[in-house]
Amino acid sequence: MIHPHDPAPLNPAMAATDPPPVMEARRWLAGVIFPPERPLINISQAAPVESPPLGLRQALADAALNNPDAHLYGPVLGLPALRAEVAKQWSAAYGGTVLESQTAITQGCNQAFCAVMSTLAGKGDEVILPTPWYFNHKMWLDMQGVKTVPLAAGPGLIPEPEAAGALITDRTRAIVLVSPNNPGGVEYPSETLTAFRDLCRARGIALIVDETYRDFDSRSTRAHDLFTDPDWHDTLIQLYSFSKAYRLTGHRVGAVTASAARLFQIEKFLDTVAICPSQLGQIGALWGMQNLSQWLAGERAEILSRRAAMVAGFTALPDWKLLGCGAYFAYVEHPYPIASDALCKRLVSEAGLLMLPGTMFQPAGSEAGKRQIRIAFANVDQTGIAETFRRLAAFKG
Amino acid sequence: MIHPHDPAPLNPAMAATDPPPVMEARRWLAGVIFPPERPLINISQAAPVESPPLGLRQALADAALNNPDAHLYGPVLGLPALRAEVAKQWSAAYGGTVLESQTAITQGCNQAFCAVMSTLAGKGDEVILPTPWYFNHKMWLDMQGVKTVPLAAGPGLIPEPEAAGALITDRTRAIVLVSPNNPGGVEYPSETLTAFRDLCRARGIALIVDETYRDFDSRSTRAHDLFTDPDWHDTLIQLYSFSKAYRLTGHRVGAVTASAARLFQIEKFLDTVAICPSQLGQIGALWGMQNLSQWLAGERAEILSRRAAMVAGFTALPDWKLLGCGAYFAYVEHPYPIASDALCKRLVSEAGLLMLPGTMFQPAGSEAGKRQIRIAFANVDQTGIAETFRRLAAFKG
Repeated sequence: MIHPHDPAPLNPAMAATDPPPVMEARRWLAGVIFPPERPLINISQAAPVESPPLGLRQALADAALNNPDAHLYGPVLGLPALRAEVAKQWSAAYGGTVLESQTAITQGCNQAFCAVMSTLAGKGDEVILPTPWYFNHKMWLDMQGVKTVPLAAGPGLIPEPEAAGALITDRTRAIVLVSPNNPGGVEYPSETLTAFRDLCRARGIALIVDETYRDFDSRSTRAHDLFTDPDWHDTLIQLYSFSKAYRLTGHRVGAVTASAARLFQIEKFLDTVAICPSQLGQIGALWGMQNLSQWLAGERAEILSRRAAMVAGFTALPDWKLLGCGAYFAYVEHPYPIASDALCKRLVSEAGLLMLPGTMFQPAGSEAGKRQIRIAFANVDQTGIAETFRRLAAFKG
Repeated sequence: MIHPHDPAPLNPAMAATDPPPVMEARRWLAGVIFPPERPLINISQAAPVESPPLGLRQALADAALNNPDAHLYGPVLGLPALRAEVAKQWSAAYGGTVLESQTAITQGCNQAFCAVMSTLAGKGDEVILPTPWYFNHKMWLDMQGVKTVPLAAGPGLIPEPEAAGALITDRTRAIVLVSPNNPGGVEYPSETLTAFRDLCRARGIALIVDETYRDFDSRSTRAHDLFTDPDWHDTLIQLYSFSKAYRLTGHRVGAVTASAARLFQIEKFLDTVAICPSQLGQIGALWGMQNLSQWLAGERAEILSRRAAMVAGFTALPDWKLLGCGAYFAYVEHPYPIASDALCKRLVSEAGLLMLPGTMFQPAGSEAGKRQIRIAFANVDQTGIAETFRRLAAFKG
């Protein structure tokens, strides 16, 4: 029973799952008055706030008006042209071979994770997540009765394969890495990913690498060599989101790259949960991949300049400790003797800053989480970043 | 291990789940040549093939070009304006009170079912589905390790509350009814739904009523009185799809109406699997609800005339038995001494007809399923229906 007004059954695994952090944080805004001279700076969610470029919007509008297929069911695993484009660009970018039959489109990258994990793990199984983790990964595992095994990140928020190896049991089904990391911002070294792949392969478990933020990686060389291995698909499952690169968050388009045999299993999940991805979203993603590479290079440069401003800002705030910075995120340790969730609520009303506390990214009761905060800086320009630091400096705790 | 090329783990519950029937049926088309004088008639999927009306397409195009919110994340439970519109129209149509806080938007009605069921049942629990059932419901339960308890429909494909009552155990969490029914086409009498509600309430389980096809119900009065009960939300969970009424299959928009307490749990699932429904799909659904009631009345009349043609056609084919007809479906018993799946494959190559066999809607090994076929007639006009019957009459088995 979940409530006096709904005495019907409640799945205990669902009851034990935390509510969505981003929605919880939005509720903190209720009733708070933000004075005109100090408007809210919302750095809680990793989402571009500007619209996609005009050309992409025109492609969407044109499809809505003139392309009958835009309104019809499509294949469960996504538009063939978009799958082929991902396969082609991934093969080129990673120096390996990815076939169209080894990639599929989902209603966003979260759904790709849920679909993949459904094929790997059921109730009573275990999955290893480095901490701090992406909360939606933890929520899905909780809902499914899969045990999340936390792997405390090593120096520089980089997870260590040896430590992971010691956590593997006969119920372990996968290790999940997010690089560049959410919430930590860290770009995992190529050798780290290789070592994790070797570990997973040796132990017969899957390695899931979520590369939602790959387009904003600061490195000029490819982020990893995993796809150069012709047998990559015996261990590796890669996730991607079109939301960040092409400003398509509201359209829900992601991708999963894995063995064709696993996609056959994933198709069952996607058919049941989605039937197919939104056609307009896929049309936008394809247009973006085919037309926006130059524009995206400029976007990346802008994000990297904001990242540099974050690093500089925290250098000038020595009480705060920058643990990681990259992708869309700065992950920091705050200097106050109160827990981060209480602090973040106060920062809404007292500084007009909405950020997510580390408690949302760490196991319940974690001391580290109480000291940490995630700042999603991609939404704020240089002026906004400067103002954020003015407010943090002025806040007296 | 799922395959020599992917030795990573496979969740046994997923392995035991059937592949998507509609995708399986599409594969039957591979390599078949359809002569110009006898093109394929695809009556396998319940989907309008025409585009939405121009006004709706223009609303989508305008939003894509000019509405920045169309590209951004929105609330997990959907656009407030669309939730409010559903609440208003449901309250009026069903003669009861549905609040905005008691309805939420999903990425299609399949997702609404998965989200609802996640809040009700976990591995080892039981859910009662009348047969023939909607295969995606069965697939989700299989994936989740929830036991599907089949309830053989009574006369006229109407499920009987007494028979259902005898199947309830202490692990039963819900009964799922689809009315008008997919695949059976039957409109369940209002008293049947009331009796099921009373049964579920008395036994402390949920009643899920999937009304995806409500807009094509042939009755001039409301289909049921469930919402007239001020305590409806202690037992009832209603599902809806915008796909059929407004021709939005490719946009993936559905709705769930339940207690606010249950929506709080559903929000966890939707946040993790979807983040939010596609914004353009929601904008289209809202535009449709606000502007297309007159047009939809015409659509309903057209579907009802096709339904009449199906009834007349089978009356003239006495070897075939029409078990149910309504919504988008005729559900029939074929006269041949072969199983329906083998027959449906032959009808593709020998008659140019793609239909789904009853084996896809019945428990494995069911004798009834081998005799049955579902015909999704909404896609074919009167000429196509006449041609379908010519081909069925000419087919010699």
